[in-house]
Formats: sequence, C-alpha cells, structure tokens
Amino acid sequence: MKKNVKNKRIYLDHAAAAPMDKRVKKAMEPFWMENFGNPNALYKEGLAARNAVETARADVAKVLGARAKEIIFTNGGTESDNLAIFGVARNLDIECPSGHSMSKFHIITTKFEHHAVLNTCKFLETQGFEVSYLDVDKDGILDPKNVAKALRPETILVSIMYANNEIGTIQPIREIVKVIRGVKKKGGGNFVPFFPLFHTDACQAPSYLDLNVEKLGVDLLTLNGSKIYGPKGIGLLYIKNGVKLQSLLYGGEQEGKLRPGTENVPAIVGLAEALKIADKDRKKESARLVRLRDYFINRLLGEIPKTVLNGHPTQRLPNNVNVSILDVEGESVVLYLDEAGVACSTGSACTSESLESSHVILAIGKSHAYAHGAMRFSLGRTTIKKDIDYVMKVLPDIIKKLRMFSPVNIKI
Amino acid sequence: MKKNVKNKRIYLDHAAAAPMDKRVKKAMEPFWMENFGNPNALYKEGLAARNAVETARADVAKVLGARAKEIIFTNGGTESDNLAIFGVARNLDIECPSGHSMSKFHIITTKFEHHAVLNTCKFLETQGFEVSYLDVDKDGILDPKNVAKALRPETILVSIMYANNEIGTIQPIREIVKVIRGVKKKGGGNFVPFFPLFHTDACQAPSYLDLNVEKLGVDLLTLNGSKIYGPKGIGLLYIKNGVKLQSLLYGGEQEGKLRPGTENVPAIVGLAEALKIADKDRKKESARLVRLRDYFINRLLGEIPKTVLNGHPTQRLPNNVNVSILDVEGESVVLYLDEAGVACSTGSACTSESLESSHVILAIGKSHAYAHGAMRFSLGRTTIKKDIDYVMKVLPDIIKKLRMFSPVNIKI
Repeated sequence: MKKNVKNKRIYLDHAAAAPMDKRVKKAMEPFWMENFGNPNALYKEGLAARNAVETARADVAKVLGARAKEIIFTNGGTESDNLAIFGVARNLDIECPSGHSMSKFHIITTKFEHHAVLNTCKFLETQGFEVSYLDVDKDGILDPKNVAKALRPETILVSIMYANNEIGTIQPIREIVKVIRGVKKKGGGNFVPFFPLFHTDACQAPSYLDLNVEKLGVDLLTLNGSKIYGPKGIGLLYIKNGVKLQSLLYGGEQEGKLRPGTENVPAIVGLAEALKIADKDRKKESARLVRLRDYFINRLLGEIPKTVLNGHPTQRLPNNVNVSILDVEGESVVLYLDEAGVACSTGSACTSESLESSHVILAIGKSHAYAHGAMRFSLGRTTIKKDIDYVMKVLPDIIKKLRMFSPVNIKI
Repeated sequence: MKKNVKNKRIYLDHAAAAPMDKRVKKAMEPFWMENFGNPNALYKEGLAARNAVETARADVAKVLGARAKEIIFTNGGTESDNLAIFGVARNLDIECPSGHSMSKFHIITTKFEHHAVLNTCKFLETQGFEVSYLDVDKDGILDPKNVAKALRPETILVSIMYANNEIGTIQPIREIVKVIRGVKKKGGGNFVPFFPLFHTDACQAPSYLDLNVEKLGVDLLTLNGSKIYGPKGIGLLYIKNGVKLQSLLYGGEQEGKLRPGTENVPAIVGLAEALKIADKDRKKESARLVRLRDYFINRLLGEIPKTVLNGHPTQRLPNNVNVSILDVEGESVVLYLDEAGVACSTGSACTSESLESSHVILAIGKSHAYAHGAMRFSLGRTTIKKDIDYVMKVLPDIIKKLRMFSPVNIKI
C-alpha cells in the first residue's frame, strides 16, 4: 500500500469531531484557574464568571438573531434535542388541560433524524404519543407537502433537522415552517392552541448555513460545540420567547430554572467564541469547501467504478461527501484508509460501534448493500486540495484490493 | 475598613467551585487539539480518545474500589443525582411488574439534601411516588434508626448525601446501609425484590472521605469534577453491577446505552486526574485542614459575640466552617468581606440568587433568624493560617458595623 510520505494525518471526519480552534482555547483559558468562580456566587470571582456566561449568551443570541434570554446552555446536542422534545411533550398536561388527552398528542419527524431525536420520539411512543416518521426523497430532501399531509389538529411538535449529519442534505426549513403555518391558518380552531411547535437540530449547520431563527421561523433550535471547533460537552437550545418547556433535570435554579447544575463557564465561553468564528468565516469557508467537495465527489464517482453519491448533489453541506462504494464493507475501507493516514467514517460516530446499517442511507430508499459500502468524508478548515488528491491516490487501490476478496458483486 | 494589604484574594468558597489543579489542566491538554477524535470512531484519533476515556474509567473505578463498567460519566453532580433517582423510579414498571402499583412506590431521603436530590424527589411526588423527608438532629446528623422506622415494603430507594454541602456534616452511610439490610432481612418477602437501593451524593467528599463503595455498601454514588479541583461540566455515577436504571436521555449508544452524547473526553480525563490527586492527598490534607478549621471555628465563636456553629463539631468535612452570626444578613457580610478581599458564601451557590432561607439550616431545627445570618467558609488546598487570621482581623469590625444598623436583636 502506498504510504503517506510526509506522515501527515489527513483528517476527514469533521462531522464527528473537530479539533478545538486555538482562539477558542485562548478564550476559555482564564476560566480554568483564574476566573474559576461559581457564577451564582455573590463575590468578585462569581460576578466575573456570571459576566462571562451572560456575555457568551448575548454573543450567541446575536449570531442567532435571538434575544439572550432565549438561549439555554446544555451539555450538548443530545441533551438539547431531548430537552426540546421531552420538554414540549411533558409540559402538555400543564399547558393544554382540556379536550386533548395525552394519548392523542402527535409528533412529526423524519426517518433520517439524528438518534437523539429519533430515539427520544421512539420512547415517547411507549408513553402514548403518536409519531409520524416522514419519508425523505431519494436525494434525502423532505418535501414540505408531506409535512402538510401529516399534520393533525393534535400535532404538538414538528422536529426536522437542518442539515443531516451523515449525508449532509439541507432541509428547506423555512418552506416547511411556512407550510405548517398555512395549514394551521386554514385548519383554524382545530389545532391545540400555540401548537405545533417547530424544532430543528442544527448541530451540523453553524459553519455553513444561516442560523437566523427569525428567518428560519423555528421555535426551538439545537446547537453544540464539538462540531464547530469548540469544546465538547457543551450545547445550547434556543427557546423562542413564550415557549414553555418542562425541565429534564431537577436541582438548582440555574438557566432560568430550566437547566440545573453549575454552569460550565469555560465551555460556555468556548462555545460562544466558536460560534462567532463560524459566523464570521461562513461565507468564504463555504465557497472554498463547495469547490473542494465537488472536486472530491467528481473524482470519486469518476475514478472508482460502482460508486454512487448519497444525498443531494447541491443542496448539501459544503463539507459533506458521502458515497456508497459497492461490493465493499465501509468499516474495512475506514481501517485501510486509517493505515494510509486518512481518518474518515462510514456514517454517524454515535452508532459506529453497533455496525448496523445506516438508517439514513436506508431512509433515502437505498438497500443494505448500499448502506454497507457508505463512506462519509467530512472536510474541514485545514482540508486542502492536496489532501483530496492523496485520498484519491490511495483509495482506488484499497477498493480494488477489497473487491478482490469480496463475496458480493452487486448489479448497478 | 481595613484593607488586605498585599491585595491577595482569600478564596474560602471551595464547596461552590475550586480552581482547576494545574496537573488536571496538563492531563486534559492533549485532548483539545491533538487527540480530539470522537471516541466512537474506528480510526487512530478515535481509538486514542477511546483509550483515554477507558483509562480514566479504570482510574476512577480504582479509587472507588469498583469495576470500570460500573462507572458512567455524566455532565455533573445534578445529572448524576437525577439519573440515579429518576433512573430507579422510571425503571420500575419494567423491573417490578407485579403486585406493586406505581403509585405505591416509596423513596426515603432527608430534609437537607442538595436540591438535585430534593427537587427530583419532589417532582416524583407529583408523579404518584411517596417520599419521606427525614429529619436530621440538631447537629445535622441522621440517626440510622430513623431510616429503619421509615422503611416500608414498597421503599425502592434511599438517597442520603455523604457530606452536606452547606454545613459539612458527614452521615454514617455504612451504619444506615447496615440498618436497611437488617430490616430487610427481618421483613423478608414483603420488600420489592432487589430493593430498596441506596444512593449517596458524595460530591463534597472525595478530598476528605473514603470513597470505597464496597465498604460504604452503596448501590449508586454521585461525584463531580468542579468541587475537587477538576473541570466543570463533568460528573459520574457509580452504578453497582446488576442495578438497572432507565436512561434520562435518548440518542446514541454511548456509556453502555445509558448516557447518550459524544463523550467529553478532556473533561473525563480531567475528572479522573482530579480524583486520583484527591485520593492520594486525602489523609495529609484532611489532617491539615481539620486543624485550620477548628482554629477558625474557635476564633469565630470566641471573638464574635452571638455566633453559633452550624453542624456537628467533629463529624464534619475538614474544610467546612458554617456559623450563624446573629443580627446580620449573611449576604451583606459576603459583600463586605468581598470588598475586603475575602470570598465566601451564605450557603449553597445553586440557590444564592433566590435569597430564600437555607433549607439546611432550617432542617437542623434553627429559626429563619439563624438561617439569615448563616455564613459558609469552605477552605481549600491553598488556605493557610494567615488567611484565617486576616479574616478574623476584618470580620469582627464588619459585623459590628452591620449590627449598628440592624433592626433585629435576637435573644440567644
């Protein structure tokens, strides 16, 4: 096997984890040992910490076009998704006391959401909720009309991810929200007052897509730090003014009594810094990566036989390349590429241990054979054309070798 | 007012937050930008992160005398407490299908637990659980006999904190567990099989008390990082082998499917390092601080009139000093001491904004007047006798001044 001559590691799994930006690290630095105070304390150290948290909240709100009090810091994307969905569902007996029994409430999502949304919805089904898991089309795009068709008077929440973590497809969030509003206007009094609410998991979006919550029209929006060159273990939930949620956790009165526990000051500061940087560099970096992405996709499809693109060719994240390479197991390709100095994945890292077929690839109507050969390359800030060229130097040989020993030969 | 001449800050609120140990910071360092991988990924960066997480888990387990697979990493003390209590309560319909209806299940705790336990139990009361909030004695110690009396066949969980965060009293956990076992042995078949489970919040304990879970006899134990010179936003729950919990959050399959979300690798590494240091220094540091604590208490009680100790004189954390200074408002004392260069608190930081009387001081049978004047000084690794001497130089004058304007004059 050809070796990566300079021993440079080529990291192409930014959708799973990104290295922390040195500016983020610098911003967090004073809060470990100097301004380490508990932000709920009344003295100097506490006030410094409180000030840092509230400055971060204001900074984040600015990027989202939101108000500071609409931002709640959590432990990460999974907690934010859970807080949004459970928060709405569990608050219903308080908010909607009459005429709508718990068992009738209905949630709409898609078949290819992140597991933090999907498994939360599945759990709610065991609690008497009804959930519609909508199909997406063969390119991984949800047709807003399908949301309209699925809406019921008892629909209390629609949760659709902004950009898919595996195949990078970008959903038409604005159009979906408009369609919901239109149906509700026509349906009128049949709907539960104030519902349905709209939630989006936007964890993969900040570096590339507009996050303005007013323009998007969302009521709830999930973000986290680790995908945007920020710290791990930190996330946020945007909660539109007036939207009431039930807390997931009980304890102290932090975060507007909605999220108890001592605030993770350095991580909050780091998340805000990472988000500001993403916002500032978004346009330029997106344009750069779109070119690189399309160059990579063209070479993959052109130079490796029986390779197909997963997801929409243009309505996708600038950093996402996802292809099914037939007649090989994705995990084997990951290991061989690793040996050759390239880090990439078969799909979501959260389920990489389970070796189950990707629910996302299946959701776009492809067979298990396509899911088994799915490869995700997610580019990042340090990715350059030379990295792609190196992958294209080693990957065709790896595939050839693996196919020699492959028991399958799928007709395409 | 006398000034702190050297402008040195004297930080005496280590129970609220502690500065991160530089060794902890060093241990975390490689995991921000170098080994930043997602521990669920299959390639080199992922394996390095996975290795770090599992090494940390083994290190933590060693300190607790537990097995690595009995340790689950969470976001902090509050989440661990919630996971323990909700986890047991919500798993009942699965584990105990017959003969015991949900509404009959019973939990025992005390009146002076941390809010993460107290408010979780209060919420469960709204869900049909019955909760006994036991009294502690005037010194803040729980009599194991009272636990025995409160036990019912349908008791599924007893949650008693190891050391109180406000007044530092140490509960006789081993004796309580023995008493429970004794009652269960006599009561026999009346109890729900495998129950009651025993949980303890040990967040304030690691630097000073033995954490061996076998010796303590606990089924569930909560720890966090920020109180032991580790990072904020990280905690753990020890879950005895065989104990089944329902997850709080739904998503990926991390942490034995019990705690989804990308693992916070640097914080996990930091928590393990902090715990190892606490374990190593425990004996020596405890002895040092006991001397300092008692010196401080004696001077406070001797030199400031109408000052009483809250909590047990010896069965208390080596770093905890909590006194009620009558006829003054604790918050005013905090602010004046802050100006004089000293950081301390009135009680728990988690509720410092609410300005409600401390439920802990009320739980030991003292009146609101005593709660209003409660002051907590929690010493730490850098605290020396000179710091205490400085506090005792400025505090009596502050109290004199505040009492001049005080509308109250309590008879003692």
